Amino acid sequence: MKIIELHESVTASNDRDADTLREEMRRKGTLLINLMSSPGSGKTTLLSRTIRDLSGNARGFAGNRAAEDGLKTAVLEADIDSDVDARQIDRLGAKAIQVHTDGMCHMDAGMTASGLDEMGYEGIDLAFLENVGNLICPAEFDTGAGRNVMILSVPEGDDKPLKYPLMFQSSDALVISKIDALPYFDFDMDACVRRVKALHPAIRIFPVSAKTGEGMEAWEEWLRSALCDWRSES
Amino acid sequence: MKIIELHESVTASNDRDADTLREEMRRKGTLLINLMSSPGSGKTTLLSRTIRDLSGNARGFAGNRAAEDGLKTAVLEADIDSDVDARQIDRLGAKAIQVHTDGMCHMDAGMTASGLDEMGYEGIDLAFLENVGNLICPAEFDTGAGRNVMILSVPEGDDKPLKYPLMFQSSDALVISKIDALPYFDFDMDACVRRVKALHPAIRIFPVSAKTGEGMEAWEEWLRSALCDWRSES
Repeated sequence: MKIIELHESVTASNDRDADTLREEMRRKGTLLINLMSSPGSGKTTLLSRTIRDLSGNARGFAGNRAAEDGLKTAVLEADIDSDVDARQIDRLGAKAIQVHTDGMCHMDAGMTASGLDEMGYEGIDLAFLENVGNLICPAEFDTGAGRNVMILSVPEGDDKPLKYPLMFQSSDALVISKIDALPYFDFDMDACVRRVKALHPAIRIFPVSAKTGEGMEAWEEWLRSALCDWRSES
Repeated sequence: MKIIELHESVTASNDRDADTLREEMRRKGTLLINLMSSPGSGKTTLLSRTIRDLSGNARGFAGNRAAEDGLKTAVLEADIDSDVDARQIDRLGAKAIQVHTDGMCHMDAGMTASGLDEMGYEGIDLAFLENVGNLICPAEFDTGAGRNVMILSVPEGDDKPLKYPLMFQSSDALVISKIDALPYFDFDMDACVRRVKALHPAIRIFPVSAKTGEGMEAWEEWLRSALCDWRSES
């Protein structure tokens, strides 16, 4: 497993770097999804199942259908330390690279571009950036991604929109993960959705369980249509 | 509920500010516990039960015993936004104040001192700082607390020591919370403890459930003895 050590970008304008990266990815037809969440929200488990499903191997007919309909995916795993997540993705056969952020609590556009260059993404349909586990700082830095997605897991509680509003406002979609754990936690789904919509009325919300598969189809359909939109946007 | 808006301290040396605050608190006999964790690890629930138990109201004899043995506690709730946690603590009758960090992802010593001054802590035995929910940045800033405590909840996973080593290295004690959820998650307690001890051999580890009460006694005993040590340290 290749590990890339990154350092904070020294360029003046992160926003300009982000726009440059976004335009380059649009030319190449790759949609970058920036996944943000707390530590332990189940990003890697969600991603593993999503990649397996989107690559066409999910329903047991891996042959022609995979070649025909399957999407090519890649993952940039950003962490302060370790490479456990990248190894898990690697075992799925998806392109994966681990980047270390030199202690930094978020990824910026320059770091993202370096990681993507190092990995290479020619022919990739969907690239996922698994941002550093943190509900605060990543929301403040445009990474150059085409879409921002936040993951909130049921055990974290339904009050998170009240405490971390910017993260919900910065995201195009919210995945509410680990819904199989709903019976064991006091999580009020209606209250959570209401609080999120009050912050960001247009956000798409997908309650899912990567364990049981519940809700995965709607989330994956959204990814497919986001890719289609991305390629047709001017 | 009083809400204090704080801004990043402008003094040159956070470490010096931290030492100054620590010495002042030692003179007044108050031990400040800095509680750090991910968002949604159950800090407020743990704190609510801990305060109730330590104040002497836990076992149903709130009369003389409370006056005799009970500890006086106070809580400084630090969040980007909202005051839901401070309201919950307030309802317990403990002294509580909500501070907002102006978007900052951590508390520094100057901010902590301002919050404590605003709240007042004369006669308080244990003051808890509920730091911003974040496993990265708070570990890098000395708040002036006498003890650092990290909370890791079972749903977050046993791999967190691999990904956020500094947080475990900076903490005197680790509370592993929500152990009532162990049957529903793949959390290897032995592996977690082994990983934590590899980073920090002297750390004290307390697996607890604030819901069922399991393990709370050992954690609370540690707090009582930390207070005693704090007052006898020179």
